[in-house]
Amino acid sequence: MIVIAERINATRKSIAKALKERDGEFIASETRKQTEAGASFIDVNAGSDPSSEIESLRWAVGIVQENTHLPLCLDCAGARGFEEALKVVEGEVVMLNSVNGEKDKLDAILPIAADRGALLAGLLMDERGLPQSVEDRLEVAEKIVEGANKAGVPTEKLYLDPCIQPLSTTPQDVENVIEAVDKIMGAFPGVHTTAGLSNIGFGLPRRSILNRVFLTYLIGAGMDSAIMDPTEPDMMATVFAAEALSGRDEFCMNYIQAERKGLLRP
Amino acid sequence: MIVIAERINATRKSIAKALKERDGEFIASETRKQTEAGASFIDVNAGSDPSSEIESLRWAVGIVQENTHLPLCLDCAGARGFEEALKVVEGEVVMLNSVNGEKDKLDAILPIAADRGALLAGLLMDERGLPQSVEDRLEVAEKIVEGANKAGVPTEKLYLDPCIQPLSTTPQDVENVIEAVDKIMGAFPGVHTTAGLSNIGFGLPRRSILNRVFLTYLIGAGMDSAIMDPTEPDMMATVFAAEALSGRDEFCMNYIQAERKGLLRP
Repeated sequence: MIVIAERINATRKSIAKALKERDGEFIASETRKQTEAGASFIDVNAGSDPSSEIESLRWAVGIVQENTHLPLCLDCAGARGFEEALKVVEGEVVMLNSVNGEKDKLDAILPIAADRGALLAGLLMDERGLPQSVEDRLEVAEKIVEGANKAGVPTEKLYLDPCIQPLSTTPQDVENVIEAVDKIMGAFPGVHTTAGLSNIGFGLPRRSILNRVFLTYLIGAGMDSAIMDPTEPDMMATVFAAEALSGRDEFCMNYIQAERKGLLRP
Repeated sequence: MIVIAERINATRKSIAKALKERDGEFIASETRKQTEAGASFIDVNAGSDPSSEIESLRWAVGIVQENTHLPLCLDCAGARGFEEALKVVEGEVVMLNSVNGEKDKLDAILPIAADRGALLAGLLMDERGLPQSVEDRLEVAEKIVEGANKAGVPTEKLYLDPCIQPLSTTPQDVENVIEAVDKIMGAFPGVHTTAGLSNIGFGLPRRSILNRVFLTYLIGAGMDSAIMDPTEPDMMATVFAAEALSGRDEFCMNYIQAERKGLLRP
């Protein structure tokens, strides 16, 4: 399971403040906490203030890199942000988060991903707005996969996100997301699926339990990545247990190893 | 979700001791804890010592009834235990736990259930031993449903248990159990499915997380009851979240109400 750790995101007040005040120790601490919890990538989003986003992103990338051995997932709004941030990224592996099915976005960002050999997260929405059905999602997935392949980004580097909408407002869509993950994993061999989990519980109490239970269903459907907070109690334990119970962890080797590393404890 | 609360079971050392010493306060406290946590039935198993099982069961039934408004689930090995314990059971509703597909068991216990109008939990195993496949389970289910109907126990009173075997020893059976639940709910309209959850994690660390994640998958497959410990942290929250995410809780009404009652908190 590829865990894209989401805590360093300027939509969180504490991160916006740390970015504004250049509080490197706070960013460093968030980086280390997520690394220790078992993340695979550290997402870095500095998008609170458009006038300073790129500068803040470059600064944060520097701090994060000094405090983890993990690759980064750059999370920003436009092509120029990716280009500027990539100049300070060290190491081979990097993920760009994200494109979607909009033609302008794909045209701007696919060449950057191809040129850098980057992994690419793609939201399954486009000019028509948020997807409403399994079919909507499969259509956008096809557009992104074909566009990426043409631009020189292989399917194996794509992480498609079915766009989770809140259970409280769009309950009929929960089943669509699960089915879409299953169908996309079957339709595009080698592709990855991922999802920003934390939307699911919007407006409801105890969001963390909804995150974990929904993650369980998505892993059961074949999802092999998630954009999530690995420091939330029992999130990583849920990942390992769900993989073991879904036939994706022979002899429970990863589960047992995770226990030894202390990753199963709340 | 019908939660059959499992803590009062003589296979637990503390319960065996309380039964032996006639420690009514301990049994009372276990009863109240499970009631407050959100149980639907309180299971009572006094089977540690065959020579005193029936007498202990009758004693425990008395204590449990004084400390809960919930119906009981009598859990014992043979017909005479059920008959004797039923004499001290108050109230209309009671569950008998359990029969299985063995002819002798069915012949002995179905008439008791029919006579008393009791609900009946049935393990999907028979003279051939534990089930190995989905088909094995469907076969035994058919035998139990047909036998029960003939004896005057309607399908709606049956709680069929697919026999969960440990992930560590029988990983290939996990998927069978999930599929069996789905197929049984479809094949016998009105029937319930239930499962003794706590077997799944045998021999593995952090069994409670495996219980919760497996419960999530089973609820997704349509299981509408479980034999479980409702006092385990996040177990009841998992039940409500899984039902909400499986389309079984319109407008998340039960989920929100559970929060108001304090049932979602660890």
